[in-house]
Amino acid sequence: MIYDLIIVGGGPAGMSAGIYASRANLKTLLITKSFGGQINLKAVLIENYLGFEEISGLELIKKFEHHLKKFPIEISENTVTKIKKEKQIFTISTADKKQFQAKTVIVSSGADPRPLEIPGEKEFIGKGISYCVACDGPLFKNKTVAVIGGGNAGFEVARALATWVEKIYVLECLKQIQADEANIKAVKNSGKAEIITNIELKEIKGNNFVESLIYKDNESKETKILKVDGIFIEIGSVPATDFIKGLVDFNEIDEIKVDAKTGATNIEGLFAAGDADDVPYKQIIIAAGEGAKAAISATRYFRNLED
Amino acid sequence: MIYDLIIVGGGPAGMSAGIYASRANLKTLLITKSFGGQINLKAVLIENYLGFEEISGLELIKKFEHHLKKFPIEISENTVTKIKKEKQIFTISTADKKQFQAKTVIVSSGADPRPLEIPGEKEFIGKGISYCVACDGPLFKNKTVAVIGGGNAGFEVARALATWVEKIYVLECLKQIQADEANIKAVKNSGKAEIITNIELKEIKGNNFVESLIYKDNESKETKILKVDGIFIEIGSVPATDFIKGLVDFNEIDEIKVDAKTGATNIEGLFAAGDADDVPYKQIIIAAGEGAKAAISATRYFRNLED
Repeated sequence: MIYDLIIVGGGPAGMSAGIYASRANLKTLLITKSFGGQINLKAVLIENYLGFEEISGLELIKKFEHHLKKFPIEISENTVTKIKKEKQIFTISTADKKQFQAKTVIVSSGADPRPLEIPGEKEFIGKGISYCVACDGPLFKNKTVAVIGGGNAGFEVARALATWVEKIYVLECLKQIQADEANIKAVKNSGKAEIITNIELKEIKGNNFVESLIYKDNESKETKILKVDGIFIEIGSVPATDFIKGLVDFNEIDEIKVDAKTGATNIEGLFAAGDADDVPYKQIIIAAGEGAKAAISATRYFRNLED
Repeated sequence: MIYDLIIVGGGPAGMSAGIYASRANLKTLLITKSFGGQINLKAVLIENYLGFEEISGLELIKKFEHHLKKFPIEISENTVTKIKKEKQIFTISTADKKQFQAKTVIVSSGADPRPLEIPGEKEFIGKGISYCVACDGPLFKNKTVAVIGGGNAGFEVARALATWVEKIYVLECLKQIQADEANIKAVKNSGKAEIITNIELKEIKGNNFVESLIYKDNESKETKILKVDGIFIEIGSVPATDFIKGLVDFNEIDEIKVDAKTGATNIEGLFAAGDADDVPYKQIIIAAGEGAKAAISATRYFRNLED
């Protein structure tokens, strides 16, 4: 059995691609561990997906998933480990040793949170260190937490945390905060936040659980210690593209190179969309648009094969 | 008064850009005749905008407009006639002789329906010839109509018409129908449609009102006459980019050339998104994504100017 199209990844790009491909009548399999991609990790309020004024990430994913499942698309709960192409057929291997075949593939495998890579980080994962405010935020009721990362992701996490915690430090290594004004304002208005910029993170310390965060102030050159009960890390992401190394061209940060007009990669029949590709802005509405493009391109490529 | 950003056009690209720019705190003016762009012309059922399973175009526009207007964005009901750039400042002229200035501009002016350019077309506009099923569809209750165009747009219009009319001809000049299977099936299932392909359109005839459509069958070489009360033309669109000719690079079909990763044009500070640019697929979800990209790029450009 050879599918017309296999979509790898169930974030907004993969779901939008699935809708377009199913409507075009492609026999489509979508392989994903879970739906929603990184939205799951940050189920905070989303205000910038055109059409939904204010919606939580989890609610938005539910709407997306329900929308997708209206169409006759097969879904496999699996992790892809390898993609090969031989004689115009792609073979996709999964962690549980299954193999699937297709004539076209869309890689929309998204990205994973980027780690800090300082001493103590690995040791305290799940013991005060979290990459997932939706999962772990409520555990820190009335506690003191630090959010690492002064971009929109960090500030959105800080906004969400403000409903539970007593005190939030937002730390940004650069001199300037990178987040939108709307996010900065909301965090400041919580009255719970202290914003610290221009620093170098040194170490996370604790006993059974995180107890403190050590950093150097780049201006005063002093080493400082913040007493915290939890640390949320929001310093961007790493493309989840290991399984396709060697097959397709990457940029220098392991994103799949695409023609952003169509989602085409350097491999015929292989398309990419969403956070796994080299479109620089990682946004839900952008991923959804790129997914639609990749599916239209895959459909055209497939029809040409069949003609 | 110089705006940080002026957005030209209120379709999905412009509205999405407006949301992103306002959230980033750019003092933004959006100039448009009306909201929704081409969605207004085809307010049929939309099933492929991720998150909305089934929604009419008019309803979707209302949601978009309401979403946009939550943010502090200025809106001017106007038609842009010219954009000039002098010393890093853009000056935008409108049909009612106003001028507005800004440091960055996003052109999301969309496209207009493409005319057939055969005898009788101009003569019978508003007298049986329509480019807008949402406006004119209900006028043809129990009548016989032709839809020109065998792509998704044509079939979506035919689907909408099927609820009113008695008989629909769908005409496509090429040998093959280009629409999605889902659309073709729905039109066929209406039991009212006859699909005619591989033809050359010759003339539209009538007295006070459209009475017939004349075409040549490319296979039999015969000239045929269809008796029809109305004709809906859905053969694509022409970019609404006249007002920016001479300032920015176009492709051969008058679309604004962009770097599709960022929405940047060849003019610094000028970005484009949606149906006016040279991304080949014209879809609401794609336009919304491109609008977000253009706004993020415009914000970065603006912040660099200010630094």
